[in-house]
Amino acid sequence: MPVFRRLYPSHGRDFPKNTKTEDSSRSWQFGVCCRTLHTGADRPEPSLAAAPDRLPFSRITQEDLAFFRKIVPERAITDPDLLESSNVDWLKSVRGSSEVLLRPQTTEEVSQILKYCNSRNLAVTPQGGNTGLVGGSVPVYDEVILSTALMNNILTFDSISGILTCQAGCVLENLSLYLEERDYIMPLDLGAKGSCHIGGNVATNAGGLRLLRYGSLHGTVLGLEVVLADGQVLDCLAALRKDNTGYDLKQLFIGSEGTLGVITAVSILCPRKPKSVNVVFLGCETFEQLLKTFQLCRGMLGEILSAYEFLDSECMQLLNMHLKLPNPISDCPFYVVIETSGSDPTHDGEKLHNFLEEAMTSSLVTDGTVATEDSKIKALWSMRERITEALTHDGFTYKYDISLPVERIYQLVTDMREHLGGRARRVVGYGHVGDGNLHLNITSPAKDPALLAAIEPFIYEWTASCQGSISAEHGLGLKKRNYIYYSKPSQAVALMGNIKAMLDPKGILNPYKTLPDNLK
Amino acid sequence: MPVFRRLYPSHGRDFPKNTKTEDSSRSWQFGVCCRTLHTGADRPEPSLAAAPDRLPFSRITQEDLAFFRKIVPERAITDPDLLESSNVDWLKSVRGSSEVLLRPQTTEEVSQILKYCNSRNLAVTPQGGNTGLVGGSVPVYDEVILSTALMNNILTFDSISGILTCQAGCVLENLSLYLEERDYIMPLDLGAKGSCHIGGNVATNAGGLRLLRYGSLHGTVLGLEVVLADGQVLDCLAALRKDNTGYDLKQLFIGSEGTLGVITAVSILCPRKPKSVNVVFLGCETFEQLLKTFQLCRGMLGEILSAYEFLDSECMQLLNMHLKLPNPISDCPFYVVIETSGSDPTHDGEKLHNFLEEAMTSSLVTDGTVATEDSKIKALWSMRERITEALTHDGFTYKYDISLPVERIYQLVTDMREHLGGRARRVVGYGHVGDGNLHLNITSPAKDPALLAAIEPFIYEWTASCQGSISAEHGLGLKKRNYIYYSKPSQAVALMGNIKAMLDPKGILNPYKTLPDNLK
Repeated sequence: MPVFRRLYPSHGRDFPKNTKTEDSSRSWQFGVCCRTLHTGADRPEPSLAAAPDRLPFSRITQEDLAFFRKIVPERAITDPDLLESSNVDWLKSVRGSSEVLLRPQTTEEVSQILKYCNSRNLAVTPQGGNTGLVGGSVPVYDEVILSTALMNNILTFDSISGILTCQAGCVLENLSLYLEERDYIMPLDLGAKGSCHIGGNVATNAGGLRLLRYGSLHGTVLGLEVVLADGQVLDCLAALRKDNTGYDLKQLFIGSEGTLGVITAVSILCPRKPKSVNVVFLGCETFEQLLKTFQLCRGMLGEILSAYEFLDSECMQLLNMHLKLPNPISDCPFYVVIETSGSDPTHDGEKLHNFLEEAMTSSLVTDGTVATEDSKIKALWSMRERITEALTHDGFTYKYDISLPVERIYQLVTDMREHLGGRARRVVGYGHVGDGNLHLNITSPAKDPALLAAIEPFIYEWTASCQGSISAEHGLGLKKRNYIYYSKPSQAVALMGNIKAMLDPKGILNPYKTLPDNLK
Repeated sequence: MPVFRRLYPSHGRDFPKNTKTEDSSRSWQFGVCCRTLHTGADRPEPSLAAAPDRLPFSRITQEDLAFFRKIVPERAITDPDLLESSNVDWLKSVRGSSEVLLRPQTTEEVSQILKYCNSRNLAVTPQGGNTGLVGGSVPVYDEVILSTALMNNILTFDSISGILTCQAGCVLENLSLYLEERDYIMPLDLGAKGSCHIGGNVATNAGGLRLLRYGSLHGTVLGLEVVLADGQVLDCLAALRKDNTGYDLKQLFIGSEGTLGVITAVSILCPRKPKSVNVVFLGCETFEQLLKTFQLCRGMLGEILSAYEFLDSECMQLLNMHLKLPNPISDCPFYVVIETSGSDPTHDGEKLHNFLEEAMTSSLVTDGTVATEDSKIKALWSMRERITEALTHDGFTYKYDISLPVERIYQLVTDMREHLGGRARRVVGYGHVGDGNLHLNITSPAKDPALLAAIEPFIYEWTASCQGSISAEHGLGLKKRNYIYYSKPSQAVALMGNIKAMLDPKGILNPYKTLPDNLK
């Protein structure tokens, strides 16, 4: 069979005319997150500057409120203080001005709300745990906020197949606890697990720490119940591993960020709880050695490998400085967190021992430590999981979530450092090596439009030149919507627009998100 | 968190009026396959009886043929003898009367062909290896056959990430051989691997023997290149594990059976080749014990379990009688094939030994044999893989591919036997226990409309009453299209119709397939 390499055109060259994505004066504040988390002290400016003009949706009237109070009695919130936390995102980087938050408990209530809003031409922002990082889960103007927080019932769990069916508002961590009691785990795990909802996870196609082992939600989600913009309930809530009766419609809604329908229930395939978990923290001299270690470990740990994460020495400095977390090993340019999950502690220990011996004797790693106890496992994981928190203490942070061929991921950090020179306080890289997913963060003492102009579009062009993705797992939301053409050709974006028009002809669902402005 | 069980309405009750699905006089021959495979001797009758009337597509003219000969010189086949094998399906159960077979080599050629056919209103049947079981890959009338057979180049393979990108016409087995030389395997494996094309696998969302371990193509396919009905090339051929830039458009085409676009290239994530493979063949007294053995084996074999398949004693009789394959163990009502794939032969052997000891001492299994050598592994696998072939020697076979909650899958076989009484020669059950997928086959000395009328709609109603799927992995194609309402609510089918209309407004792509007649 002949083998050849085809060169694909860079999508970065594929911009339609009149797009506004390079107008940094409109979008500069969207790389920024503030210093404090979860406090109301440091209020963000309204996000309107980067949003398109308000679309001609109706404005809420007293009659509308009366209707909502009839449908969800006591659960139509209009008190501005109570609305505050739903109007602002987790990073406190964007803010809307919604006047009403609805908290339905049933699919039927969601259906009635959407049917009404569609007929009245009222825009709606679906909201789960509001932990997104791209401004996708808060209103931009006065959209009605439709929260799934009270839709938190587990519907069924089949302990033979491991298939869980639950309402969309179940908090990920609660589902994990429920399953662990039954000897299963969720196929995904995120830092935000204590707040995020499974419906939001599915709507944003959340990746997280277990993707390397259990794959994406496109594979593990078996069924969805979705309420469409006109209030119609689409029941694709099959709890079957296989179903080839026609188009797999639920896939459309996985990763559509609430723009095509409101997910009200989820059916998901859950793996057995591993009987043995080990975590290793290693140091490497070069990124090349880190990649070689990855290859070695995939071969020697094989089926028990469940995570291969990395951080650079800049991240370690942030953890030391801002969170007082000591380096568990000696100083190195690169660090790796490896997790194994298996069914036999003795076998897993032996595999790990053999791998570590080989990695040390071949000088791929220079230092390391192993944890098998829960508390030490958590301590080692925190070196990876708390980087985001450490970054918030380092000034304004310009955040990027890039997917690249795995061998290129650190080159972008190096090139960015060289490109920015002394303009940034710090350029740090960490992320999911196993998935080719780099989290690149650039800090600065204060907001710095000149710095942002140096970062963008440089970073997007660099990514597009490697056929990478400008959003690996965070989605596009409000902040990244206009950069879509760096990763998707214009035909694909146009098709997205057609799908949106088919499912939500009035465009009431999560407007200003995911789709670029030039489609409107 | 409160837990409750919701009762879903059976989709079987959800039939729109005027559907023709229960008109067995129109569809009776579609449960049937003939006795011989791969020979031209036993020609099937034309499939027209069960097809809707020919839609008003244009008929091929000399000008059309001249155009095709310009686009694909020497590769526009019109010789009826050469066309024969492309007009008839693998089971020789349906047949079309196409007058031209086109064999493009490039995406650009496919694009030109479709652009032309769309403008001329000529219907097109895309065809891969033509190994489908539901009549989806052959024309019904005179549709142009568009074969991917000459699009068989591997484009790239990344040995770090395991991501393979290739043209759609690559034969699955060739890809497997290519990867095995590089220490990887394909994430799917099928009996038809020697003929089927990866593009066809993706178009039909093929399941197969490795789904239990590596998941469905919705998770492992990372990118697709698709030519739309109007000739537009949709490039979603990302070779990234993560990409959350907007809707995951490629998912639409996975399992759409060529009705929404022609897949021309595939990017797929491939697992490492296991260093150790074991196969066990066991006997159980009851199906309940077989299920308990499955639970035990999931716990004790954990991450190395790669298949859990079953057959009943009726299957064993067929293998003995028609293929002279001897039973490798003593006679039992049920047999199980378990495969393990792992990275450490010693560990895998120990896990398997412990599992077998427990299974035998707890009397879950009554007899068994283990294979670690290639030839014996193949011999044991043939007891499962050759059942389809054995069935073809047992008379006319009514074939069903049902997805059910795993604990119900054999109940359908038992109920069917009781329901049919002496009317069938044999009612046999086998399939993928791990995936809840039953292959139910009913044989008869000859075509028997009365028998078929006893089987259908009984089998579909039974399946719908358990919220099962009437096509687990085979798809709907021509044969099952009108039964879709047993597994999908009418809103979902209507949405399928809208998607079809959006992507293929003239309906030229694989007409009479997948979508039920009442949508036309």
